[in-house]
Amino acid sequence: MQTRPSLTPLVGALPEMVPFVGPEAQERSRGKPFRARLGANESSFGPSPRVVERMAKVAGDMWMYCDPDNHDLKEAAAAHLGVSPENIVIGEGIDGVLALVARMYVAPGDAVVTSLGAYPTFNFHIAGVGGRLLTVPYRDDREDLDGLLEAVRREKAPLVYLSNPDNPMGSWWEAGEVQDFIEALPPTTMLVLDEAYGELGPASALPAIDVARPNVIRTRTFSKAYGLAGIRCGFAVADRRAIRDFEKIRNHYGVSRMAQIAGIEALADQAWLRSVVERVAAGRMRISAIATQNGLKPLPSATNFVTVDCGHDGAFALKVLEGLIARDVFVRKPMAPVLDRCIRISVGLDHELDILAEELPKALAAARGG
Amino acid sequence: MQTRPSLTPLVGALPEMVPFVGPEAQERSRGKPFRARLGANESSFGPSPRVVERMAKVAGDMWMYCDPDNHDLKEAAAAHLGVSPENIVIGEGIDGVLALVARMYVAPGDAVVTSLGAYPTFNFHIAGVGGRLLTVPYRDDREDLDGLLEAVRREKAPLVYLSNPDNPMGSWWEAGEVQDFIEALPPTTMLVLDEAYGELGPASALPAIDVARPNVIRTRTFSKAYGLAGIRCGFAVADRRAIRDFEKIRNHYGVSRMAQIAGIEALADQAWLRSVVERVAAGRMRISAIATQNGLKPLPSATNFVTVDCGHDGAFALKVLEGLIARDVFVRKPMAPVLDRCIRISVGLDHELDILAEELPKALAAARGG
Repeated sequence: MQTRPSLTPLVGALPEMVPFVGPEAQERSRGKPFRARLGANESSFGPSPRVVERMAKVAGDMWMYCDPDNHDLKEAAAAHLGVSPENIVIGEGIDGVLALVARMYVAPGDAVVTSLGAYPTFNFHIAGVGGRLLTVPYRDDREDLDGLLEAVRREKAPLVYLSNPDNPMGSWWEAGEVQDFIEALPPTTMLVLDEAYGELGPASALPAIDVARPNVIRTRTFSKAYGLAGIRCGFAVADRRAIRDFEKIRNHYGVSRMAQIAGIEALADQAWLRSVVERVAAGRMRISAIATQNGLKPLPSATNFVTVDCGHDGAFALKVLEGLIARDVFVRKPMAPVLDRCIRISVGLDHELDILAEELPKALAAARGG
Repeated sequence: MQTRPSLTPLVGALPEMVPFVGPEAQERSRGKPFRARLGANESSFGPSPRVVERMAKVAGDMWMYCDPDNHDLKEAAAAHLGVSPENIVIGEGIDGVLALVARMYVAPGDAVVTSLGAYPTFNFHIAGVGGRLLTVPYRDDREDLDGLLEAVRREKAPLVYLSNPDNPMGSWWEAGEVQDFIEALPPTTMLVLDEAYGELGPASALPAIDVARPNVIRTRTFSKAYGLAGIRCGFAVADRRAIRDFEKIRNHYGVSRMAQIAGIEALADQAWLRSVVERVAAGRMRISAIATQNGLKPLPSATNFVTVDCGHDGAFALKVLEGLIARDVFVRKPMAPVLDRCIRISVGLDHELDILAEELPKALAAARGG
């Protein structure tokens, strides 16, 4: 074997697999594009036309580095949420924030608690710092707050992850229940409360923001309701000291100038946001109706997707998924036990849902026959 | 003291200071904009008009996530350099690559070698993983290859950083000398050969790319000659196994869709690149002439900036810098001993260099009188 530089023991022990397969990779291996892009919980309605216009206008300015302080975007996000800019840190999407949170709070061997089948990118970043991931099964298709709390206490976990509304099930807890969970946490445990879908569900699911509390980091994104998944911009809201600690390790020039400008403009067009939220709600109803017409059970959703119970086991749901993909419909599915009986369908444009309506019966028939 | 979550011992020990101050922050504290932006080694000539047009055209597509494989951009970069896409990893600028390299090769306490006064972002990321930074002084305003090698051997360092052409001095080594350095390195030491300014200097400074060598990671960027600093896109070229190892920890959705598209288009317009390189060379001559006319000594440069020896100590050069900033000319300066006698002036547009020509004598007079 060739002598070569060694990875650190921590990184050397990580698996070599590539954890994320995007629709583009699937299109490359299929050799043809999807006709309906309903798998990545993107917003097919796009960003606000104001945002598009602004991005086009500033394209020529991209020779300048981004402001490493993200000053103007922090001001805008803070004003939007009624907090101080000192309570905000901007990241390359929520993913960028999660990577930093893992490094900040998780030393090798530390226990980290999440739900079995919840956001895989969080798990990826925990593995990347040598954290010991403890997964609590969902209960009735919702993240199990009591179970998470019990695991946190038992393991003295420094970090716990909760998404509300939830991905991949679309379920949610009301604010009071989340607040009770927060208050029951040990003060030495940091909660990442991922509200990527926060704008898309009932306002009653979002607890009041309390930036005096030192052990909650809430994350928001421009990738979902704001329709800017491709620009990579999200942020975290927390108490000032937690926010200041991000400065120690974040990639200060990580969030592009384009992302910062797009984010500011997106926040400024709340009318667009409201119109998207309405269209997403209509799309959820349409997907639910299509599922029901096919004898499947759509789960309630506070997000921009509907998780559909295919009524059998994971193997069957996988066949349905494969059938849809074979028919050029990009969807995804939960892979963890019990949840894996479902497929997950993002709201798309009308013509995409027409394709879904047309192809789902065929995919089901093939799954039943195969 | 309030009970709160603890940072890891590693992150908890890092300083709280904010390491990077952009021109925007200076403008905010000054309360007025700069008239000449000559401090960040950006390309005032901007990206190719083709790139600008393309970015404007695809702005509406930003609702889609980026391809986590960066497939098309890797193909383009590989074709451009005559390597395989498997030899390329894309990052959020070279900074993003450096953050990963630090995590991959540096365990807490490991020695890492760089030059005293070289790229501070590298040092920042080494500190972030608990590396022990060893700095070798420049010799005759160039990175001291023998000194770096000696430090690597003495400390059995797993990682060494070399920029060629160099920032902040603008100096460079010819390919043969760099190649000798590479071959003399222990095979267990990884070299980051940062070629951010590679397109701007003599081609004779760039060794042939050898992706069979397992201990060299070369970095390139769209931030300098390609005029896309604000879009955050750079890449590394290395042997396949080293590239594959990035997959274990990189933020797979970190490089925006916009950045990937802009990068592809930028590579496709090599005529624009050549025109920029010519204009940068002319700008260097102009800055050198202005410096000489003011009795200062411009150093030879293979980059898009000229480092100017102010002829006295660091305190004097700092006064010159402050005098320029007070006169609305954004420049920077090296801060490490010996190098700190200089200021660093990026090539800008003609009207910006006119302002420099007008204000430099006044800044010098003030520095001498003050």
